[in-house]
Amino acid sequence: MKDSAKSSRRQMFRLGAAVTGGLLAKRELAAQEATSKLGIPLGPYGERSPFEKAIRWTRDSKTPETGSSFTPLADSVGTLTPSSLHYERHHAGIPTIDPVQHRLIIHGMVERPLSLTMAEIRRLPSVTRTLVLECGGNSGSEWAAKTGADVQRSHGLVSCSEWTGVPLSLVLQEAGVKPGAAWVIAEGADACRMERSIPLAKAMDDILLAYGQNGEAIRPAQGYPLRLIIPGWEGNTNVKWLHSLKLTDQAYMARDETAKYTDLMPNGKARIFTYDMEAKSVITFPSGGQTLPGPGVYELTGLAWSGHGRVERVEITTDGGATWTQARLQEPRLPIAFTRFRLPWLFEGRDAVIGSRAIDETGYVQPTREALIEVRGVNSGYHYNGIKLWKVHAAGMVTNVEV
Amino acid sequence: MKDSAKSSRRQMFRLGAAVTGGLLAKRELAAQEATSKLGIPLGPYGERSPFEKAIRWTRDSKTPETGSSFTPLADSVGTLTPSSLHYERHHAGIPTIDPVQHRLIIHGMVERPLSLTMAEIRRLPSVTRTLVLECGGNSGSEWAAKTGADVQRSHGLVSCSEWTGVPLSLVLQEAGVKPGAAWVIAEGADACRMERSIPLAKAMDDILLAYGQNGEAIRPAQGYPLRLIIPGWEGNTNVKWLHSLKLTDQAYMARDETAKYTDLMPNGKARIFTYDMEAKSVITFPSGGQTLPGPGVYELTGLAWSGHGRVERVEITTDGGATWTQARLQEPRLPIAFTRFRLPWLFEGRDAVIGSRAIDETGYVQPTREALIEVRGVNSGYHYNGIKLWKVHAAGMVTNVEV
Repeated sequence: MKDSAKSSRRQMFRLGAAVTGGLLAKRELAAQEATSKLGIPLGPYGERSPFEKAIRWTRDSKTPETGSSFTPLADSVGTLTPSSLHYERHHAGIPTIDPVQHRLIIHGMVERPLSLTMAEIRRLPSVTRTLVLECGGNSGSEWAAKTGADVQRSHGLVSCSEWTGVPLSLVLQEAGVKPGAAWVIAEGADACRMERSIPLAKAMDDILLAYGQNGEAIRPAQGYPLRLIIPGWEGNTNVKWLHSLKLTDQAYMARDETAKYTDLMPNGKARIFTYDMEAKSVITFPSGGQTLPGPGVYELTGLAWSGHGRVERVEITTDGGATWTQARLQEPRLPIAFTRFRLPWLFEGRDAVIGSRAIDETGYVQPTREALIEVRGVNSGYHYNGIKLWKVHAAGMVTNVEV
Repeated sequence: MKDSAKSSRRQMFRLGAAVTGGLLAKRELAAQEATSKLGIPLGPYGERSPFEKAIRWTRDSKTPETGSSFTPLADSVGTLTPSSLHYERHHAGIPTIDPVQHRLIIHGMVERPLSLTMAEIRRLPSVTRTLVLECGGNSGSEWAAKTGADVQRSHGLVSCSEWTGVPLSLVLQEAGVKPGAAWVIAEGADACRMERSIPLAKAMDDILLAYGQNGEAIRPAQGYPLRLIIPGWEGNTNVKWLHSLKLTDQAYMARDETAKYTDLMPNGKARIFTYDMEAKSVITFPSGGQTLPGPGVYELTGLAWSGHGRVERVEITTDGGATWTQARLQEPRLPIAFTRFRLPWLFEGRDAVIGSRAIDETGYVQPTREALIEVRGVNSGYHYNGIKLWKVHAAGMVTNVEV
């Protein structure tokens, strides 16, 4: 603990600034000692405090079975997303699946087609990984204009959970992949049978047939009882309510990899099968919609992640990108997981533009919005990972910057 | 991924054993393709599946405001405990606290007594750590007779969460500890004002004033809005609903460190202030009350932890302790956190006695029940960490071993 204690002391800011007026008055001490009332009994299943109000945000819609709900990142602490607040992106609502009835079938170009029960799947060798899941369309509103007034609306289609499941490669080995097979077509048991084509090489690498999330069964909104977890790939490919894997010699060109989840480039051609999620970060405090109570020292904080591995470094600007300072990163920095970053900042009561940029272990640097648009144009809604700037106004309100 | 892939292949057992009868019939494929119904819409706050029934277990009591509820470890997957299933140990029920009204006062032998609001505390530099919390009395029923019929009842007073908060040392430095102060008396805001005496050295080391649990505010049952988190120390010292820290020159000899949470030794003297939780482990599958469907290969799995740091190794016996085999440990192994262990095992349909022992980074080896009793006697209810054995009967039922 010695090194980290020393470093925390180096980075520490004077507490006095934050606790002005915090000196204890005698009458307060008396008040503290007065209350006494027997509390709520032990219970079978806990709930959060009634004083906690954070919820996922959804656009008003006449078809709420298709669309997205956004994680309230401004309320996040630490590096995990509570399962109840994990973002959603559904195409035909959440099916109610009896795990006893559910089957995963593995068919197509395999030697031994399989139909597995959940009990059979849960009996197989399992692994556990903490991983980010991010919708390919997260921050899509940033391409054209900054329509997300707060960090939930602008960046809330990303969450981080501890996932547990069986390596897909084990099951494919058992089924026996036939020569010539090159793709796995994954299909969900939702009404639209959401499907995606996954190259066999990735399927044999690190994909999980996941049934566990944050220590319990996966939540219905995240794919109960079984889903794909594909480390580092756009959320849509992580097929929920997984019921079928078909081995084929070519991709399916499914709706969600042609009409959606492709990237129209400036030259009018579309990129397809852009699975990887690049390094990205966002400041969650202070962020749009919040108000600082006054000048003083604050701890800037936010989240960084990369589909390509560990976050190596996060840098902060408080002057609109002119200068950058390295933030403190919360250990352990797990690959393809949220990394919490923190940096003390003296808000002097003057306008300031703040932002963060992530550098991952491959050396990739999160680009500015301008640099990203220069390459990608503004035709696309997917794979936006530009630096997010917030304006802290002299009076303390935080908003999007003008572009 | 190469090394872990290779090791997983080495340890892999033939899937065929687990998926007997899993071959896909044509009629199943047809059935899978038949259903189609629009699902549940996007929602603000998710719930678990109605098919999931795991709950905390509590003894029937006329005073359910005092007592314990036990985490359903047999249903656990991965290394985290869902907050809703985190064990409880209350002495006067769960107080309902408005965080806006709540204050933490720091007084006694300090230069500047402080009264801090939650907003002030949340503005301070914070850290995040994944840590086990274990009741000092966990597995207490194992001292005399094995009264816990399943792993929830025998070992369920332990849970693991990601905690976020402010280093206590920062706040104490700001208050200015007076010369001669040697103890911090922590008091909760529950009706009984639960209090414990904590040596100043530990308070200046790694204790957290925690407000975050698993990515959101601490749950009421775990101390909302503020609690102590004391890495590696018995749960009781991690005072919940924390409202007062008083610096003193001596311990308080409070009820929970004299009448309770002391260890009566064979010679009639009691150990006091036995804060540290030693290395421990338990097999969660298969465990008491479960039934294996038949002979075949299974993945034995369980949890290991140590109050003194990382779990270095876990060894498994399937012959009542005669021989031991090293289990595979889930990475990352974080200090003082749950480490999930796994080992394939061929159940041959004959009686078997299975158990696990943890070895931590200090080299400490979890003792047998007999070795523990030889030193500690059976007068005590606290700090039991003996090896837990389960008997797998030839027919598949799992029970406690006879002692």
